Amino acid sequence: MVDITHEIAPQDVRAGGLALARSAQYLAPGVVLAVVDPGVGSNRRAVAVEIAEPTQASSVLVGPDNGLLAPAVAMVGGASRAVELTADKYHLASSGPTFAGRDIFAPVAAHLCLGAVLDDVGTPIDIASLTPAMVPMSRTEGNQIQAEVLWIDRFGNVQLNLDPDEVQPFGDTIRVTVRGVAHKARRVNIYSDLAHSGVHSGELGVLVDSYGLVAIVVSRGSAALELNCIEGDSVMVEPGDSSASTFVKLQSKRSD
Amino acid sequence: MVDITHEIAPQDVRAGGLALARSAQYLAPGVVLAVVDPGVGSNRRAVAVEIAEPTQASSVLVGPDNGLLAPAVAMVGGASRAVELTADKYHLASSGPTFAGRDIFAPVAAHLCLGAVLDDVGTPIDIASLTPAMVPMSRTEGNQIQAEVLWIDRFGNVQLNLDPDEVQPFGDTIRVTVRGVAHKARRVNIYSDLAHSGVHSGELGVLVDSYGLVAIVVSRGSAALELNCIEGDSVMVEPGDSSASTFVKLQSKRSD
Amino acid sequence: MVDITHEIAPQDVRAGGLALARSAQYLAPGVVLAVVDPGVGSNRRAVAVEIAEPTQASSVLVGPDNGLLAPAVAMVGGASRAVELTADKYHLASSGPTFAGRDIFAPVAAHLCLGAVLDDVGTPIDIASLTPAMVPMSRTEGNQIQAEVLWIDRFGNVQLNLDPDEVQPFGDTIRVTVRGVAHKARRVNIYSDLAHSGVHSGELGVLVDSYGLVAIVVSRGSAALELNCIEGDSVMVEPGDSSASTFVKLQSKRSD
Repeated sequence: MVDITHEIAPQDVRAGGLALARSAQYLAPGVVLAVVDPGVGSNRRAVAVEIAEPTQASSVLVGPDNGLLAPAVAMVGGASRAVELTADKYHLASSGPTFAGRDIFAPVAAHLCLGAVLDDVGTPIDIASLTPAMVPMSRTEGNQIQAEVLWIDRFGNVQLNLDPDEVQPFGDTIRVTVRGVAHKARRVNIYSDLAHSGVHSGELGVLVDSYGLVAIVVSRGSAALELNCIEGDSVMVEPGDSSASTFVKLQSKRSD
Repeated sequence: MVDITHEIAPQDVRAGGLALARSAQYLAPGVVLAVVDPGVGSNRRAVAVEIAEPTQASSVLVGPDNGLLAPAVAMVGGASRAVELTADKYHLASSGPTFAGRDIFAPVAAHLCLGAVLDDVGTPIDIASLTPAMVPMSRTEGNQIQAEVLWIDRFGNVQLNLDPDEVQPFGDTIRVTVRGVAHKARRVNIYSDLAHSGVHSGELGVLVDSYGLVAIVVSRGSAALELNCIEGDSVMVEPGDSSASTFVKLQSKRSD
Repeated sequence: MVDITHEIAPQDVRAGGLALARSAQYLAPGVVLAVVDPGVGSNRRAVAVEIAEPTQASSVLVGPDNGLLAPAVAMVGGASRAVELTADKYHLASSGPTFAGRDIFAPVAAHLCLGAVLDDVGTPIDIASLTPAMVPMSRTEGNQIQAEVLWIDRFGNVQLNLDPDEVQPFGDTIRVTVRGVAHKARRVNIYSDLAHSGVHSGELGVLVDSYGLVAIVVSRGSAALELNCIEGDSVMVEPGDSSASTFVKLQSKRSD
């Protein structure tokens, strides 16, 4: 039994979905239980989704059909089958409908671990009907990219919804504007390439993070504190100096 | 090995006891280790309590005899036997008497898991001598119930020490007064029955929570923030509108 | 699999090393994975260190060679062998060099659990070349000891880098000066020997803590709040009353 996290903020389906997606590729085949469930007891469906993994034993994700499972399902190859958890003999009797994590999802996951199969625990549903994830897309306007803070980890690293090749033409320095304040960040490979002179006064860097996305970072400090930002904030990203800026205008990836 | 929680506030024996009681009915037979132990090293006893479960393998709770174990013991049917942990060959040598969780309770629990029996680890004591739990009782005066905040979960749901039938006669709206401020809460079945327009401005609801008790809640927000309350606060509960109030006065459960 | 802690503050190699050292004597033989790694991706080495335990199966600690492992290694008898983790067939392919915990240390630890031996996962290095721990030493000047806050646990107990025999000559009361403010603390054996009248107004005590070091404590409260101190703060310790003070001046341990 592996506890991926118990630290998703209450009701934050997107953060839960992204955390699960970051972990999905490292999980052994098995049963994944995920619960961030603000609509508990309403008509949102309770589901189990089987992952298409032709080369190995299949995995099943169990949770609410509210978009929570979708990023992880997409990350590991898509769903092959899904059921709605209608077989209440696999649920726990309970005092009310407000804790499906305990009364429905966990017992169903346990029964799946013990040998129950998908058809035992529910009724087949169309995998195309599963609620998709709402992952924000970046948007390019001229020489500027309108991005978003996808994740702030416990170190304060600020992960953006940007692939490295989107900012690659911007040169060695990029400018990031958050909440109306512009900052410069220098392209580096690792944290210790950056100067630091205390927790709150480090040089900002931009690097390819451990998930392959662009992140704004500080060495031995929190970029989120430096930028004064939270998850979901808009971030405008553009070249940090005029020569690079001009270069990019002429050869922008987006105008290819 | 299941970690129920490591997040009980320091010294809060009542919160630890209630957390254990909420979990007790879901635990498989086995050994439960519980430590909230402000009197560590004093003459409070270290005990192991066997649970009376005639229909299945017995369970043993190990911890300080300060009321911590009592709510869980009561929840699952009462104690059948108890010992004081006097057999120090099952304890770890240590630098001092201030960490019985590490030096006494955990090693004894481990030995019980490995096959030691109750009589090995201690000396029988009268189960009637075990320290009882201090769980606050509600008190009814006329049309008002003086209740208490029993638990605030990580979502900010405010669980009261009230059974649903105690507030059932109060109609669709109840009034809760906390720290001198009155609030109205509407009876609902699930969180999403409530209006919400942001984390700090949700409509208050009253529902039967997942443990079968009355809770004050907000949809996608924290009722504890709305009510500005903490665990242990007094809460005055009464009918929320005059017609219901009159009805209740005539047919009060308490005057039956 | 035992999770010692996930609560070391970001970048705090010293706190991680001390936490590991406190746990080391209680760990069964096996593989220990430790990651506090601000220099990730730089030229700090990734290592596995075998512990010399002649009387039992050997243990291996896996982590960065930045001093993190050193206190635990010293606590359990020193290193017998060490390798640098150069065999990248035991590492995970990754998007970049910024998360060795996931991509190098954890997979190597898993392979060691599954039967790989030290020579499989890396290249032998001189154990004398391993980065030592930086543990602060206390310093005695006349009748005063200049100590440091080594650890504040979750209860707020303030562990100093002092052995009990260093303050033993100081009598029943010691004076501790932190951030320019002097406090008196009474020597006790257990928390409940101290008077307490609420979370923020307890009597300060000094006791031998559960790791055998001197700690400043409050009963049912936080000594760290009383002293307004954090880990790493300097603490001046001296006898709390003049008679003891005089006595100690004449018979100071340091002037033997």
